[in-house]
Amino acid sequence: MNNIKFSSVDITGGFWYEKQKLNETVTIDAVYDRFYDTGRVEAFGCKWTEGSEVVKPHFFWDSDVAKWIEGAAYILQKQSRPDLEEKIEHIIDMMEANQWEDGYVNSYFTVTETDGRFTNRDRHELYCCGHLIEGAIAYYEATGRDRFLKIMLRYVDLVDRIFRVENSASFETPGHEEIEIALFKLYALTKDEKHLRLAKHFIDRRGCSPKDTNDGNMDRRYNIAGEYSQSHLPVREQREAMGHSVRAHYLYTAMADYARVTGDAEMAEACRAIFDDISNRKMYVTGSCGSSFLGEAFTKPYDLPNEKAYAETCAAISLVYFADRMLKLELDGKYADVLERALYNGVLSGLSLDGKAFFYENPLEINLRNHGRHGRNLLEAGRHQDRLPITQRVEVFGCSCCPPNINRLIPSVGDYLYSAEGDTLAVNQFAQSEAVYGNMKVKQVTDYPRCGRVVLEVEGVKTLKVRIPGWCRKYSISEDYRVEKGYAVIEDPAATVTVDFDMPATLVYTNVEGFHNAGRAAVTRGPVVYCAEAQDNGTDNLNALVLDTELDAKLIGDSFSGLPELEVSGAITVSGPALYSADAPSYEARRIRLIPYNAFANRGSDSMLVWIRVK
Amino acid sequence: MNNIKFSSVDITGGFWYEKQKLNETVTIDAVYDRFYDTGRVEAFGCKWTEGSEVVKPHFFWDSDVAKWIEGAAYILQKQSRPDLEEKIEHIIDMMEANQWEDGYVNSYFTVTETDGRFTNRDRHELYCCGHLIEGAIAYYEATGRDRFLKIMLRYVDLVDRIFRVENSASFETPGHEEIEIALFKLYALTKDEKHLRLAKHFIDRRGCSPKDTNDGNMDRRYNIAGEYSQSHLPVREQREAMGHSVRAHYLYTAMADYARVTGDAEMAEACRAIFDDISNRKMYVTGSCGSSFLGEAFTKPYDLPNEKAYAETCAAISLVYFADRMLKLELDGKYADVLERALYNGVLSGLSLDGKAFFYENPLEINLRNHGRHGRNLLEAGRHQDRLPITQRVEVFGCSCCPPNINRLIPSVGDYLYSAEGDTLAVNQFAQSEAVYGNMKVKQVTDYPRCGRVVLEVEGVKTLKVRIPGWCRKYSISEDYRVEKGYAVIEDPAATVTVDFDMPATLVYTNVEGFHNAGRAAVTRGPVVYCAEAQDNGTDNLNALVLDTELDAKLIGDSFSGLPELEVSGAITVSGPALYSADAPSYEARRIRLIPYNAFANRGSDSMLVWIRVK
Repeated sequence: MNNIKFSSVDITGGFWYEKQKLNETVTIDAVYDRFYDTGRVEAFGCKWTEGSEVVKPHFFWDSDVAKWIEGAAYILQKQSRPDLEEKIEHIIDMMEANQWEDGYVNSYFTVTETDGRFTNRDRHELYCCGHLIEGAIAYYEATGRDRFLKIMLRYVDLVDRIFRVENSASFETPGHEEIEIALFKLYALTKDEKHLRLAKHFIDRRGCSPKDTNDGNMDRRYNIAGEYSQSHLPVREQREAMGHSVRAHYLYTAMADYARVTGDAEMAEACRAIFDDISNRKMYVTGSCGSSFLGEAFTKPYDLPNEKAYAETCAAISLVYFADRMLKLELDGKYADVLERALYNGVLSGLSLDGKAFFYENPLEINLRNHGRHGRNLLEAGRHQDRLPITQRVEVFGCSCCPPNINRLIPSVGDYLYSAEGDTLAVNQFAQSEAVYGNMKVKQVTDYPRCGRVVLEVEGVKTLKVRIPGWCRKYSISEDYRVEKGYAVIEDPAATVTVDFDMPATLVYTNVEGFHNAGRAAVTRGPVVYCAEAQDNGTDNLNALVLDTELDAKLIGDSFSGLPELEVSGAITVSGPALYSADAPSYEARRIRLIPYNAFANRGSDSMLVWIRVK
Repeated sequence: MNNIKFSSVDITGGFWYEKQKLNETVTIDAVYDRFYDTGRVEAFGCKWTEGSEVVKPHFFWDSDVAKWIEGAAYILQKQSRPDLEEKIEHIIDMMEANQWEDGYVNSYFTVTETDGRFTNRDRHELYCCGHLIEGAIAYYEATGRDRFLKIMLRYVDLVDRIFRVENSASFETPGHEEIEIALFKLYALTKDEKHLRLAKHFIDRRGCSPKDTNDGNMDRRYNIAGEYSQSHLPVREQREAMGHSVRAHYLYTAMADYARVTGDAEMAEACRAIFDDISNRKMYVTGSCGSSFLGEAFTKPYDLPNEKAYAETCAAISLVYFADRMLKLELDGKYADVLERALYNGVLSGLSLDGKAFFYENPLEINLRNHGRHGRNLLEAGRHQDRLPITQRVEVFGCSCCPPNINRLIPSVGDYLYSAEGDTLAVNQFAQSEAVYGNMKVKQVTDYPRCGRVVLEVEGVKTLKVRIPGWCRKYSISEDYRVEKGYAVIEDPAATVTVDFDMPATLVYTNVEGFHNAGRAAVTRGPVVYCAEAQDNGTDNLNALVLDTELDAKLIGDSFSGLPELEVSGAITVSGPALYSADAPSYEARRIRLIPYNAFANRGSDSMLVWIRVK
């Protein structure tokens, strides 16, 4: 089934409406301003020369700005924002002025290594190109103006000639995947077979090309030619999620597009196996992936350390994309479950509640005792043993891929609510909204995920499919239904269908193979994962807290986070003064206060814990 | 009270007798052979020149060989070993031939940086000198031959002139402490006030000298001038264990010597505070210290990670020294408890059961899942996130301080059994042995620590003090006694005193501040800490095991380790296939097999765990 595109979906209130308002009024400008300050925007002017005062561009800067343009264009699809248009037009002016005769566009190679284009597989040219294509499509769809799109169509022709027709570059497939996704989007717009052909070419050749594995394409630190960039095997033979997690998710997203667009069964099978490997072995409870800082990579199954979680925001965002494409390929609640898990937790934790600051890494534990003088954190003064993520969000990073990725996700979140085909409508995610598809109309009235009631007003729908979230153990629906692959299927629904998902605070346990969390549980409510911060619990030793298995949870509304806080039953461990003792510690009952994980670190640096001991 | 020196103590059977035999027949030769192979021995010949085929010496090599000489000399104090004597004489020949006119001895500076002597505080010259002094004393006491001692007396005169009289070196106190201990030993032998004066000088000036804190004495990676080398404060003002743990322990050992020899109350107070800081906040349950690889250093209180424990063998050995000196300063069972804990666990784990191989680092957890391809171990192929200790002992290290430190500790372990003064005898540690002090004689018949019965046959003892180990919660003594500072004090004891320490397998819990081990316990029996290895427990996921609080332990004799193994009650966690689930895991009862921690990794690389979850 196809998703109903967000252009046909209006989010009219509730949680995501507020997030979209914040993005439109704060985040989109905050990211632009930081990108302007750091020279990323004006880099398209290609004014840098050795010794000049202009900031020297970085080879991934084009992608940062491209994602911002895409995000801004998504806002423009719903409202008039002359300020954003003006900024985009100025960037297009610069791009146009500096596009090479043969179509090449790249603000880095144009001013730095003019002889170096398409010689180094790890210089992100095709990745930048992909993001620019997506930006151009979004801007065209928002405004109908095709100047940017035409620039990119010329560039795509060049890429097609060099990579597919001539095979004359030093490498054959991108070191950082992304253009494959863009080319499927471009094909959907242009219906031009050459765009599909190029997308397929890049995916089919991955892991097959001797060019991609020669020494010239080896990075110093990582084997760019191998698993790090998912180049170790032809993609149809891949069954495990490996290497750099964002690169991986972008590839898998495009592979799922490939399977859906072409009907390639082998490709679909590879996608299913990899999705299973991620969701059952390599994904944090927050929907984040990639547990290792070095290589920003997947490690072994079940290796999901909490304090040292890398869990890049972009990895959660790109898992949303992969899950979305799998759901398009075959409607199954398990894909929407993973999408929802990532969206409410690992994605949103990347953004501060004031909309201005970002996490790149999203740990599941912060123990401030390991920070500062004599702590174990390598990043701080004195060289101790560990490298721990930062404890406060910042406005911009040197490698600032995550902020504009949030800019483009939030305004397009409507994409994930509905799928449709003929007179069948599937409700995949829950948010107050209205959507239209052909003769079908749907209005969703809900305050999800603050509560579990969803009222659906439908018109022209013959078969209504309502996802029963994987987290939900009890629910009621006002109509008769059967359950198929995680969806309640309602034939000939009444005009109003009421669904009640029971949404208690619930302990979630990790598989026994998840050795980092043995003897612990995470508190969740609906799709939202909770955590404890020290400031709410009167101790900075959060590992002294234990949860009761009967939570007796109390919801606390009007929370700073926009979602309820929780107060649950538990205890704090008490011991004598000795370091080691045969006397077992005792437990003093106490209520434990929890906040949504996505809101951690919004009230100053603090110790934080998701996986809490269970008595 | 003074210890009865091991020269007056014969260990006649049992656990330590076996360890001494192993050291005499295997380890002492194994270490020598590796030192010979690597060029350490012949380095004293000072034959290296640029481009020559001789191996270039390292600046700490003298200390390695010196400790080996000391160990070999301790064997010579008890038995004839012409092979060892011949080796030592050959080394003395070389030393004599290459001693500088002014007394200087150093195989590194003599051939490499002849202008550089006493210019770099982190080049271990005084540390090497200290170990050579200890070797010379031991060899003199074993053989009565004073050639080596005279070499060192000349060198000490030079050190005294340069450092104390002239203060003409580039630094004022050693970057790596050790010579202070040696000088107290030398003073005990020579009774020459100048040796005491120099020992005091080095200790008194530590943390006081502007020379030691100037940039020339700053190492690139560590602040050699600061806490790393305990130079941040005058020692009398120090209250916390800080910096490189072996350097720290050597300093504290010498400080306790200082307090005992001079009666300096301020120094004694500093020693007590630091001992308390170590034993109540910074010591592994195995008696090891120094949790951080970087800097081989103490970190914050209670920061005692298991898998990444640095816990250097030398840190446990040097903690034995510090505890020994504190016990000499004031008889208190708490010092002997720490000494015993280190001796049976963190020290012995450093040596393989076949006597040939060594750990430098002694982790408290090995999870093989974190090793190998895609594991988290930085040291292995692929750059992942963590640096984990090696999982198998090796015969020699580049920095091979630990093996000869074991060589010298094991033959002198008799030092720690008894203290004496007048007609008062204290039994500090338990081992089958005979000792003489003045008119007092004691014979100890026991199979400790295999069982808890100790029979003492005493002569000429007016007051007998028998330590009640801190681990012991129930005991009986065949005589009337009162308890003072961890000792049962028996006046006018019968000729035979029988002590029975109840020695059940016991769960030991960590202080609640010890966040690494929350919800876990270590199984101990007597002074011996136990661990689980995967091969005995049918799972490589040792974090799936949980201990019952009632252990119902069964002892298994004739173990490969020379100590009983244990079988205790517990369970293994069982979960469904999902990575995350609201279904709590279940537990299947099973017996858990445990081996002494000191014997881990003797049957191949394996996962291992000390701190096991408790239900």
